[in-house]
Amino acid sequence: MSEVSEPAPRRGERRGRRERSGGLAQLPWRAVRHRLPAIEPLSTDEVEAVHEASLRVLEEVGLDVLLPEAREVFRSAGASLPADGQRVRLDRGLVMEAMASAPSHFILHARNSAHDLHVGGGAMCFATVASAPNCADLERGRRPGKHADYRDFLKLGQSLNIVHLFGGYPVEPTDLHPNVRHLECLRDLVTLTDKAFHAYALGWGRIRDGIEIARIARGVDRATLEREPSLFTVINSSSPLRLDAPMAAGIIEMARAGQVVVMTPFTLAGAMAPVTLAGALAQQNAEALAGIALAQLVRPGAPVIYGGFTSNVDMRSGAPAFGTPEYMKAVLAGGQLARRYDLPYRSSNTNAATTVDAQAAYESVFSLWAVVGARANLVMHAAGWLEGGLVASFEKMVLDADLLQMVAEFLEPLEVNEATLALDAIREVGPGGHFFGAAHTQERYRTAFYAPLISDWRNYESWREAGAPDAAQRAHVLVRQILRDYEPPPLDPAIREELDAFVARRTAEGGAPSEF
Amino acid sequence: MSEVSEPAPRRGERRGRRERSGGLAQLPWRAVRHRLPAIEPLSTDEVEAVHEASLRVLEEVGLDVLLPEAREVFRSAGASLPADGQRVRLDRGLVMEAMASAPSHFILHARNSAHDLHVGGGAMCFATVASAPNCADLERGRRPGKHADYRDFLKLGQSLNIVHLFGGYPVEPTDLHPNVRHLECLRDLVTLTDKAFHAYALGWGRIRDGIEIARIARGVDRATLEREPSLFTVINSSSPLRLDAPMAAGIIEMARAGQVVVMTPFTLAGAMAPVTLAGALAQQNAEALAGIALAQLVRPGAPVIYGGFTSNVDMRSGAPAFGTPEYMKAVLAGGQLARRYDLPYRSSNTNAATTVDAQAAYESVFSLWAVVGARANLVMHAAGWLEGGLVASFEKMVLDADLLQMVAEFLEPLEVNEATLALDAIREVGPGGHFFGAAHTQERYRTAFYAPLISDWRNYESWREAGAPDAAQRAHVLVRQILRDYEPPPLDPAIREELDAFVARRTAEGGAPSEF
Repeated sequence: MSEVSEPAPRRGERRGRRERSGGLAQLPWRAVRHRLPAIEPLSTDEVEAVHEASLRVLEEVGLDVLLPEAREVFRSAGASLPADGQRVRLDRGLVMEAMASAPSHFILHARNSAHDLHVGGGAMCFATVASAPNCADLERGRRPGKHADYRDFLKLGQSLNIVHLFGGYPVEPTDLHPNVRHLECLRDLVTLTDKAFHAYALGWGRIRDGIEIARIARGVDRATLEREPSLFTVINSSSPLRLDAPMAAGIIEMARAGQVVVMTPFTLAGAMAPVTLAGALAQQNAEALAGIALAQLVRPGAPVIYGGFTSNVDMRSGAPAFGTPEYMKAVLAGGQLARRYDLPYRSSNTNAATTVDAQAAYESVFSLWAVVGARANLVMHAAGWLEGGLVASFEKMVLDADLLQMVAEFLEPLEVNEATLALDAIREVGPGGHFFGAAHTQERYRTAFYAPLISDWRNYESWREAGAPDAAQRAHVLVRQILRDYEPPPLDPAIREELDAFVARRTAEGGAPSEF
Repeated sequence: MSEVSEPAPRRGERRGRRERSGGLAQLPWRAVRHRLPAIEPLSTDEVEAVHEASLRVLEEVGLDVLLPEAREVFRSAGASLPADGQRVRLDRGLVMEAMASAPSHFILHARNSAHDLHVGGGAMCFATVASAPNCADLERGRRPGKHADYRDFLKLGQSLNIVHLFGGYPVEPTDLHPNVRHLECLRDLVTLTDKAFHAYALGWGRIRDGIEIARIARGVDRATLEREPSLFTVINSSSPLRLDAPMAAGIIEMARAGQVVVMTPFTLAGAMAPVTLAGALAQQNAEALAGIALAQLVRPGAPVIYGGFTSNVDMRSGAPAFGTPEYMKAVLAGGQLARRYDLPYRSSNTNAATTVDAQAAYESVFSLWAVVGARANLVMHAAGWLEGGLVASFEKMVLDADLLQMVAEFLEPLEVNEATLALDAIREVGPGGHFFGAAHTQERYRTAFYAPLISDWRNYESWREAGAPDAAQRAHVLVRQILRDYEPPPLDPAIREELDAFVARRTAEGGAPSEF
């Protein structure tokens, strides 16, 4: 796979550097790169078997496409449609020919070009939690999201350098009227942050507003925007095998504008997909190929990302489970499928815990293990997801930032050279000595190791004297500190003016009422 | 690497099976096998550079060997020793020739042959926490270990099927006199458990007692014992570059008896080893090679394990850190070194948290990520370690058992065949349907997915009604349940009689006073 060209850091150049920014001592903004080979649970034959099964699903079962315009795109490309129905059966030749134009990588532009993101190849980007109906913090508990909470999450995401982009609304601001919610939220994204962001595919009007706001934020014309992807949307098929109208409209409109479509079937094995992982993956693949093919038929070469979101349910209760062994295998296999098509891969940092406890942490790290092993390019919900996505947690967002920083540090090379092999230091210290006083140590100790945000390595007595705070309580302190120290990034007043005028006009027009 | 022959389970045969035993619904006893390729942060050249540096350390710096008998072994093999000193310099020819006789794999026998363990190749064994001075549970807090606590940990380790062996005393029973502590503790290991176990290298007397108790427990003669390793000991060099007398005596005595020596330098980068990981690994390797060479010089072919325990310290306080990005890289590189010598590899499941919170969980899973990526064969402290080894935690032991079961399930194959690809089920359910009622689901749902011990997937309201227990509190309930339901494994009365007679005689003799 060809890689997006970017300046290669000298080996170890970034090791251990940290800076005080956004209210805390953290790693500087950095592009995270995969440096380890993929973990591949499937053989090449098994990948082909899943691919083949998914093509048979599209040919023999088909999928229901609820938007007439989308059915028309498929029909024009040669798909056979019943005159009056919604069922679309897709020939493998049509699908694979359409898929062939999808780029293997691209740049997702932010309004601050320092935050532009390479998507695909060996790059890994971390996005905030998105779309939680509730939020929670230790002080105020669990509650439906409000606009003020939403804005606080944007401030956190902007301040945490390891968070590369916004994956959607971290929490749904339920106190904003649905018709204008997208206008207020997107304006906040442009004014409170300068990182890349997402707009929801909730009908033609809203996604068009999103594209226009992305254009205004970049300060470019439409032609430039179409060449330079500056917005992304996540498309969930309504599994099994249904593409709803608002989502189909999102694919069409975003592809037309040259913006990024992340096609992500949400295939819970045993519920919306077969109980066997192979079957759930075959269905995931069928739905993903159909959505990606639609984008490519609308605009060949439109940037797309292959999204995988296969997990299992608790078969006793039907509750979704995340960060499980099954989730891990599905994430890894999804990466193999995305590479099969030479596409960027989207996965997620998940857990189903109700509180920021050991379960929240172990399910998250199991997820990250798989995400890294899959060489995922876009990691959604990387920071702040709790309770299977029902809650955006302030503490979890900061705790996740620590986990993500650790992953980034883990992926930095282990440097082996004469200086690091330290034969002279070993000779100087000798048997029975201690290295702390050695010159070799003194020259390096400040930046030799990753300094965590949350991990508490004090001895038991000091920790007790400090009130015995657990990891969630330590994260809570950092949340308060970051929000207190937050400063909005600079914004060109002309852009601000154009943005405000656009939002005012669209609000006066009534915003974007529901269309479907 | 040649693999230990063992009956290969049919693909997926073990998937999802669970049984009610030891007071809880858990996976059955199973050998865990590595099925994924190793994660290798070092190139072949870099592995050779570390190897080369470690040989130069042994040749040019040497190590202090504090036991005259051990120095004599090296001298007889041709090492140059100053007449009166302790410093031993080892020629690379001597070291590598001695290393060549070490077996790549072997069987560690338990008194219940169903619990015999394959060590090396693709096998992975999980040992309990060992050597913690304190223990803790949610009810009684943190406290110095007592004999009763020790016995409770043995009962937990015996009851948890995913725990394959005992890595030492889970907690130090400080109320037993040091001279007889090993006799009481080893008797408990034989009577309360039937899994493989460890004896401490604390001088000639104690390790000889340990070997004799292992022989009695197996019901075999000394010649059989020497052919069939039935006991292991962990040897820590006193880093940097010193081999203490009790440890050296342990190597000699265990090797003579054909029992397993796990040679594990404890090389904390920045304290007892260079601040750079490459240097710490070079030193780890030098110390490991020296100890393994000693065992092989005593008895060529004696079973040994290459142990790695390189981590970093918090450079602000000097406190040891575990489960860090540096730890992960060192574990992976250690696995590469062990494979360089075709030896089984020992690593650990670590964390430095003071309580069973998110930190304890994320540091543990980061450790396990590396342990699995390194294809470690013996995972010490796999269940119950807390606070960097200062505490054995009852709740953490059960929580870790859940993590280990998840790792075992993750390593089971993702089955791809016509039945699992589920094309017929996808056809039957069709677009917009639901899989729960499908025959394909109904036939499989009971065993399709891993059922966790700890993870709580109830919805928020049900969880709140149940008292909002966090993962540690849920683990605590299971601890009580397992201890309540514990039953000792069967033991041949003749063995019990011989064991009691031996302990009584050695106790009457005054046990084993400290020798060094």
